[in-house]
Amino acid sequence: MSAQPRLVPPPSSKGPVRRFSTVSDMEIKECYGIEDLDGRDPALAIGRPGAFPYTRGIYPTMYRGRAWTMRQFAGFGTPRDTNERFKFLLAQGQTGLSTAFDMPTLMGYDADHERALGEVGREGTAVSTIDDMAELFDGIALDEVTTSMTVNCSASVILAMYFAVAERRGIPMTKLGGTIQNDMLKEFIAQKEWISPPAPSVRIIVDMIEFCTRHAPRFHPVSISGYHIREAGSTAVQEVAFTLADGIGYVQAAVERGLDVDAFAPRLSFFFNVHNDFLEEIAKLRAARRLWARLVRDRFGAENPRSLMLRTHAQTAGCSLTAQQPLNNIVRVAIQALAGVLGGVQSLHTNSMDETLALPSEQAVMVALRTQQIIAEESGVTNTVDPLGGSWAIEALTDRIEAEALDYIERIDRMGGIVRAIELGFPQKEIAEAAYRFQQQLDRGEKVMVGVNRYQADEKPTIDILRIHHEVEEKQAARVRAFKAARDQARVAARVGDVRAACRDGRNLMPFLIDAVRDGVTLGEICDVYRDEFGVYRDPAWL
Amino acid sequence: MSAQPRLVPPPSSKGPVRRFSTVSDMEIKECYGIEDLDGRDPALAIGRPGAFPYTRGIYPTMYRGRAWTMRQFAGFGTPRDTNERFKFLLAQGQTGLSTAFDMPTLMGYDADHERALGEVGREGTAVSTIDDMAELFDGIALDEVTTSMTVNCSASVILAMYFAVAERRGIPMTKLGGTIQNDMLKEFIAQKEWISPPAPSVRIIVDMIEFCTRHAPRFHPVSISGYHIREAGSTAVQEVAFTLADGIGYVQAAVERGLDVDAFAPRLSFFFNVHNDFLEEIAKLRAARRLWARLVRDRFGAENPRSLMLRTHAQTAGCSLTAQQPLNNIVRVAIQALAGVLGGVQSLHTNSMDETLALPSEQAVMVALRTQQIIAEESGVTNTVDPLGGSWAIEALTDRIEAEALDYIERIDRMGGIVRAIELGFPQKEIAEAAYRFQQQLDRGEKVMVGVNRYQADEKPTIDILRIHHEVEEKQAARVRAFKAARDQARVAARVGDVRAACRDGRNLMPFLIDAVRDGVTLGEICDVYRDEFGVYRDPAWL
Repeated sequence: MSAQPRLVPPPSSKGPVRRFSTVSDMEIKECYGIEDLDGRDPALAIGRPGAFPYTRGIYPTMYRGRAWTMRQFAGFGTPRDTNERFKFLLAQGQTGLSTAFDMPTLMGYDADHERALGEVGREGTAVSTIDDMAELFDGIALDEVTTSMTVNCSASVILAMYFAVAERRGIPMTKLGGTIQNDMLKEFIAQKEWISPPAPSVRIIVDMIEFCTRHAPRFHPVSISGYHIREAGSTAVQEVAFTLADGIGYVQAAVERGLDVDAFAPRLSFFFNVHNDFLEEIAKLRAARRLWARLVRDRFGAENPRSLMLRTHAQTAGCSLTAQQPLNNIVRVAIQALAGVLGGVQSLHTNSMDETLALPSEQAVMVALRTQQIIAEESGVTNTVDPLGGSWAIEALTDRIEAEALDYIERIDRMGGIVRAIELGFPQKEIAEAAYRFQQQLDRGEKVMVGVNRYQADEKPTIDILRIHHEVEEKQAARVRAFKAARDQARVAARVGDVRAACRDGRNLMPFLIDAVRDGVTLGEICDVYRDEFGVYRDPAWL
Repeated sequence: MSAQPRLVPPPSSKGPVRRFSTVSDMEIKECYGIEDLDGRDPALAIGRPGAFPYTRGIYPTMYRGRAWTMRQFAGFGTPRDTNERFKFLLAQGQTGLSTAFDMPTLMGYDADHERALGEVGREGTAVSTIDDMAELFDGIALDEVTTSMTVNCSASVILAMYFAVAERRGIPMTKLGGTIQNDMLKEFIAQKEWISPPAPSVRIIVDMIEFCTRHAPRFHPVSISGYHIREAGSTAVQEVAFTLADGIGYVQAAVERGLDVDAFAPRLSFFFNVHNDFLEEIAKLRAARRLWARLVRDRFGAENPRSLMLRTHAQTAGCSLTAQQPLNNIVRVAIQALAGVLGGVQSLHTNSMDETLALPSEQAVMVALRTQQIIAEESGVTNTVDPLGGSWAIEALTDRIEAEALDYIERIDRMGGIVRAIELGFPQKEIAEAAYRFQQQLDRGEKVMVGVNRYQADEKPTIDILRIHHEVEEKQAARVRAFKAARDQARVAARVGDVRAACRDGRNLMPFLIDAVRDGVTLGEICDVYRDEFGVYRDPAWL
């Protein structure tokens, strides 16, 4: 009877020669113990939550006081479509808003522009005018909810529109809380969406930092973003290093403008990725906090404790999700979100399982939000601050990521700072090499993506996905054309002239932008001024 | 314009008066630090992986050497139906088998018995005869895969059938690896499925321990199960305490039989629940390992290190899953499974998202298995042993769970041991009180189940579920009747007589059971002998 057909499990990939490393290829020891703390007194090196160097979190009670903000990135179709999704999410218990804009809006073209064709409302919502912005937030209490807006090249115009809409509703700027991404340096490094070159881009950002510090003190005028650096294939160390280097770049530029670091640094915010490697990601967030606190204190002499606190939003790693077996993405997102929370984030977006296939459906986005709620309400990890503090592995990885990131930052210093390093293509090249190394490891099966290079399965489509119809584009373009036709054209021309003058003479752009959008100047029209006045950047890789 | 309709997030449940406690209602400190280690040298108190007291794991390299066994509990319909599911799971990369039997099989009734009516193949597979068992494992290499069988009252018969089927195929018993649950003490405490009273139940279990120790040394003859204790509503401490107390009961009985503890203790295995509370569950598994090692060494003088190692299967908590918004269960299971792995389990079942609605569908069980594969292959937590070791919170909780469980065990000692404690209704009462306390906390909203007492949603059914058709029962009953009709009836009667004689005179039952099932005696017929000879137990709660 030994001729039975045999059905046995596949051989394990784990043989004696295997190298053990993180997603970022950081080698990991078989076991960490007290000897890995190098005889330091951990209580001193690590500190207490809410106190320098903030390894264990920026607040003393963290999520016992208040859970992180659950902020799902959402946007598609017309502003009205997105407004409905916002209301759905708030009704499901989401605690903050986060807006995705479509490609034309991001790149500074109105919905009726020929370059917008085929892209209006497709990967985000279309906002060309103040009326679009008003519709986007219709019925939502802007002074009660905090709003994040993911936009960079055209961020100054979008923020001006947001302020102008609030003004229309009688809400003072001082009551507006939220964040605008507005991090152009990471665009040059990783995401590659830009209008103007680095120098004028940084100038506009400093204008916004200055304006918000004076007039909208609850608003974060920049979200210094490692997310896209990581999505482009960087390691965890590179993500920390280049993001904090960008941060140093903005602080340096603002200090050079004459701003007091302790006035504006408390309103800087960050945005990190949370990738698959559970231990590495927790350590990464802890290391980033500690390193930022030390850099801002030691380099800029900041004395306000709030200047030293790295406040961060995080998003689970889009690049880790798979089109294959999409329900598996719920698992990945749950583990990543848990790492984010154990790492001490202030705000979190959990990706929807269907994001590799389409814009998130209502069901998918609800599961993503429920993931955060289950972590907050059921998993018990919010009961105590920095629950993994003291873990020999976590502390050793935290130390190592901090040290290696600092080493990168010091190399960038020697090049003359981050803007120069970008011009030299340094971060871009380091990221490209890391991405290539990971791809090779995937190809060789040393790293595994379940359902992609292992555990594949025959599949029938099992989830419903959201589709954006072509009518959206025509409707939105017509709406913009009608808006333009109804304006006081002389006033529009005057406002455009004022913006152009401010571009040239270096006055803070923000008041001119708010006046312009209030009088009907569109996003595309202002960005045309930027293109004229500042020129259009070309990637040094393509020169 | 301030008359805008307002839509704001629901108020947070987290106010200043909130008490912070685990799922088990263990109060949690705001922050743990080095002061929580009470000045002990953690390296000594905690030890190294693979060495006494095994806090950090029973093997020195843990999952670097080999991942845990991915073992999905499966069984429904006819043995053929379940055989197909087994092959599907192995083809998806599962690394061990785990069998669910239907209620008649579990309670010792054949599929053609009137008491089986309406239950055949419904919540597990139907096995009444050796031919059923042969069909269940048809085409599966019993000497290459390990098999777990979840059965208690009728475990001795099921194991005899498994051995007899292997013998038919020419596979020696010495090559069979696997586990049979066979833990009657936890039935009296929690799951409440029994035939005979405690004393003869323990006698049969000791027969099986003795037989396997001599003849099937790779087979675990008992899986001492906290799972059901927890599902009945116990706390984490109670789960550890009553499970280890049951283990002490079996070891004591086997030692009293004259067995050498170092001969059989290495083949004892355990089965724990992994509930929602991430930190508590990790600490629980570490505490259980350390406490068991100390108890077996100190109480029974075991010297073989393998006698001291608590090997455990774990299953994510069925009771934590919700019929509402079933995709949320994928999130819960992912977090629970991660806790199990960080707690150092040897084998794991991940529940399917649809288990509160029906038997798991193929898609649901695949996502559950993929959850384990993503943890093993993508999360990086297998790169290092006991990654959370040293965490002040985890170590403090480990110490506390160990101390409180030991306190329970010493109370049980003072009652005269676990069998007496069960007769007095002690563990049952403690569990009932804990379950009641949790229910009150749910009712008051102090504990949250997402989608149940908070974040409810209007739902349309969104997942396909598996249904068992009524024909299964008729088919299976007819199959058993035909099997019975075709036997050598005189031989059957003689074998039944042999089993009855062994029940009376105390000889080890196992050889007689194997002979009996080989010659066609059915599961129900042997359990009838048990009912006659040992009597039928009545719950003291109902006396």
